[in-house]
Amino acid sequence: MELTKEELLTLAKKEEISVSGFKERIKSGRIIIVRNPKGAPLAIGEGCFIKVNANIGTSPQQTNIKEELAKLKSAEKAGADTIMDLSTGGDLKEIRRRIIAETDLPVGSVPLYSAAVETTRKYGDVRKMSKQTLWEKIEEEASGGISFITVHTGVSEKIVRRFQKGRRLINIVSRGGSIIACWILANRKENPLLADFGRLLKIARKYRLTLSLGDGLRPGAIADSTDSFQLEELFTLGRQAEKARKSGVPVLIEGPGHIPLHQVEMNVKLAKQVCGGAPLYLLGPLVTDVAPGYDHITSAIGGAVAGMAGADFLCYVTPSEHLSLPSPEEVAEGVYASRIAGHAADLARGKKKAHQWDRSFSLARKARDWKTQKRMALNPDKLLKVHRKDEDYCTMCGEYCALRFSEQLS
Amino acid sequence: MELTKEELLTLAKKEEISVSGFKERIKSGRIIIVRNPKGAPLAIGEGCFIKVNANIGTSPQQTNIKEELAKLKSAEKAGADTIMDLSTGGDLKEIRRRIIAETDLPVGSVPLYSAAVETTRKYGDVRKMSKQTLWEKIEEEASGGISFITVHTGVSEKIVRRFQKGRRLINIVSRGGSIIACWILANRKENPLLADFGRLLKIARKYRLTLSLGDGLRPGAIADSTDSFQLEELFTLGRQAEKARKSGVPVLIEGPGHIPLHQVEMNVKLAKQVCGGAPLYLLGPLVTDVAPGYDHITSAIGGAVAGMAGADFLCYVTPSEHLSLPSPEEVAEGVYASRIAGHAADLARGKKKAHQWDRSFSLARKARDWKTQKRMALNPDKLLKVHRKDEDYCTMCGEYCALRFSEQLS
Repeated sequence: MELTKEELLTLAKKEEISVSGFKERIKSGRIIIVRNPKGAPLAIGEGCFIKVNANIGTSPQQTNIKEELAKLKSAEKAGADTIMDLSTGGDLKEIRRRIIAETDLPVGSVPLYSAAVETTRKYGDVRKMSKQTLWEKIEEEASGGISFITVHTGVSEKIVRRFQKGRRLINIVSRGGSIIACWILANRKENPLLADFGRLLKIARKYRLTLSLGDGLRPGAIADSTDSFQLEELFTLGRQAEKARKSGVPVLIEGPGHIPLHQVEMNVKLAKQVCGGAPLYLLGPLVTDVAPGYDHITSAIGGAVAGMAGADFLCYVTPSEHLSLPSPEEVAEGVYASRIAGHAADLARGKKKAHQWDRSFSLARKARDWKTQKRMALNPDKLLKVHRKDEDYCTMCGEYCALRFSEQLS
Repeated sequence: MELTKEELLTLAKKEEISVSGFKERIKSGRIIIVRNPKGAPLAIGEGCFIKVNANIGTSPQQTNIKEELAKLKSAEKAGADTIMDLSTGGDLKEIRRRIIAETDLPVGSVPLYSAAVETTRKYGDVRKMSKQTLWEKIEEEASGGISFITVHTGVSEKIVRRFQKGRRLINIVSRGGSIIACWILANRKENPLLADFGRLLKIARKYRLTLSLGDGLRPGAIADSTDSFQLEELFTLGRQAEKARKSGVPVLIEGPGHIPLHQVEMNVKLAKQVCGGAPLYLLGPLVTDVAPGYDHITSAIGGAVAGMAGADFLCYVTPSEHLSLPSPEEVAEGVYASRIAGHAADLARGKKKAHQWDRSFSLARKARDWKTQKRMALNPDKLLKVHRKDEDYCTMCGEYCALRFSEQLS
C-alpha cells in the first residue's frame, strides 16, 4: 500500500512514532498499511495504537443483506478500525460489494469461503473444490476493493495426517482450517495455498493486498493451547512471512485462540519472534472455555494481556461467539469489549493519547460533570442508559458521595 | 474462626491444598476462614481458589429491602462466595438482619457507614460523628452475625493533610475513606481506627471477626495509580497486619483501585510482601477510567491479571459502577464477570478442578452436546438466551461448522 508523503507524516504522528521509525517499520514489515479505496490509510503493527476488527457476514441460516449493513453501521459507531466480511450465505459477491461501498473502513475477506460455498452449491460437498475455483475467488476478491484476505497457508498435509493420532481435544475450530483439512484428506494433496505460496504472493503484489496468514490450527480449547499442532503451524507461517517480506508483500500473522492467561504473553512474544516482528492479529485469546455468552469478556482479558505483550490487532469476539451469528447489538458489545482491551494495553504501553483520555475523563468525573463524561465516555449511550442520578451525585452513594466529601480535602 | 477437624479436611481438599500446608497457612494468616453462622466455612487466601464478593445495600435514594433481597438472590444464583451489605439508606439494622437471615453465605459490612448515617440523621453532618458511635456500631455489627468488616485503618491524619498540596487528580474515591478524612480535618484528631487499633483487635478477638483493612486511599484514576498516598496507606496496613497476626486476629488487605495493566502484577506482589502474605481483597483493579457502563469488563481484565499474580479475593464491580446502584440483573453480570476473572486466574495457577471444568465443557462443545453445555456453562441462562441453533449446529456457521468438518479428521 503506497502512502503519499503527507499521509505518512499524518499517520506517524497519529501513531506517536517518529517518521523515520515509522518508515523503517513499514519497510521491514513490522507495520502494515490497509485501506478502503475510499478511505484513509490505517497503520497496524509495532508501536502503533492497537486496532480492532469486527467480523460480520451472513451464514446459510441468515442471508439478509440489510442485517449485515446494520451490523456494519453498529461496528462503525462502536469504533471498529476494520471490518471483515465472512459471509457464507446468500449472494456473496453482492454482499461484499455493498459492504465495501457503504464503509470507509478497510475491509477484509476470506476467499476460501466463497470457493467453499460455490463448490457446495454445485456439488454438495466442499471437498470437491477445485484449486482453480480457489485461485479465482482470491483474485476476484483482491480486485474488488478488499484490503486484506485471510489465507490458511499453515495447514499442511503433514500436520493434518497427525490429527488421526487423536492427540487433540478439539481438532480444528477454524472454519477455513477445517475446510482445507478435509480437502487435503479427501484429495490426498497438499494445501494449494501452502504448495503454491508463490502464486499467492504474485496476486498480493498485483493488487497491493495484505495477506493475513490464518491460524487454521489455533487451539479451540484450553486443553489444546500451545500444543504441537499450533506451534508447527506457527513455524510454517514464520517461514512464509519471511518469503513475503523478501518479495515485498505485507503480512499479518493470525494468532490463537483459547489460551490460558499464563501462556498469553509467551504466545505473543513467540509469534513475534518466529514471524520476524510481523503484526500479530489475534482472535481473543479466550482465557477460558466455560463462559458462552460472555466470550467478549473472556477475550477482553486475553486481548488486553496480549496487547500489553505486543499484539497489534484484535479481532473482536462477541457475546454470541460459539452460539450464533451476532445481532447488531452484540456486534457493538464485541467492539466495545475489544476496544477496552486495546485501550488498556495502549495505557500499559505508555501511549500518550491513551493517558490523556483517561486523565481528561477522570477530571470530568471528579467534577461530576456528567455532560463531559457523556461526551468522552467509551460508549456515551451506555453511560446514559445506566446512569441514574439525583442532583449532582448518582444513586450509588447519594449524599455519601466520596467525590463530594473529597472536595473538602484540598 | 474455629474449624472442626472434619471441616478442616473438607476445606483443604476442596481447595486442593495439603492438610498440613492448609493448617500452616491459617496459622500464619495467609489463609483466613469466614462463615455465616448458619453456613459452611469458606477459605480465602494463598493457593485457594479465588473467591468473589458481591456488594449489595441501599442508598439514601433507594431504600427498598425487597430490592436488596432480590440482589442477594441474584448474587447467590450467579455464584458469589460472600456478600457485603453496604447499606446507607432506610433501616440499616433491619436490612442487615434480613440479609444475614436469608443467606448462608458469609456476610461482611462497613460499620463506619452505620455510624455516618446515624450521625448525619442526628446532626446533618457526618463530621460530627463521635468516636463512641463508631465503636458501638462496630461492636453491634460484630455481634450480629457479620463475618468480616471493612475498617479504614490506613487513613492517617498525616496523609490526609498532604492532600492539601493538591498532588492527586481525585483525592479519595472510597466512601469510607472520604468520611474518615473529612472527620480528621474537621476534628483535628487522628483516625480513631488507627489511633486505637488495639481496641479493634480486642473486638475482633471477642467476636472471632475478620478485619478487612480498607484501602481508603485507593487510586480512583489511572493518573493516581501506585502513588505515594496509596503506598503510604499500604505500608500502614502492613504494620497493622503484623500486629493483628501477633494477636491472633485474621485480616484481609484491601487493594486498589484504578491501576493500569502493567502495574497490576507489581501492586499485587508488593501488597503481599508488605502485608506478610495476608489474603489480598481487590476492588477491580479497573484498568481504565473511560468505560463507564463496562466497568465489570475493565475490572475483569484487572482482576484476572491480579489473580494470576496472587490476589485471593475479588470484589465484583458491576456495569453500573460510577453511575448508579446496581439492579439485580447488574449484580448478576458483575458476579459473572468476576467469576470469569477468578476462573481465568485459577486456570493460570494450575488448579485441577478449574482445568477439569474447561476440559469437560470443551468435550461437550466438540460433540455439539448442547444439553451438557447448558448444564455446565458458567451461566446456563445466558447460553440459552444467546444460542440460536438449527439441527445440531448453530447459526454462526450453519453447515460450514468447523466442529462438524473436524469430525472427518480423526
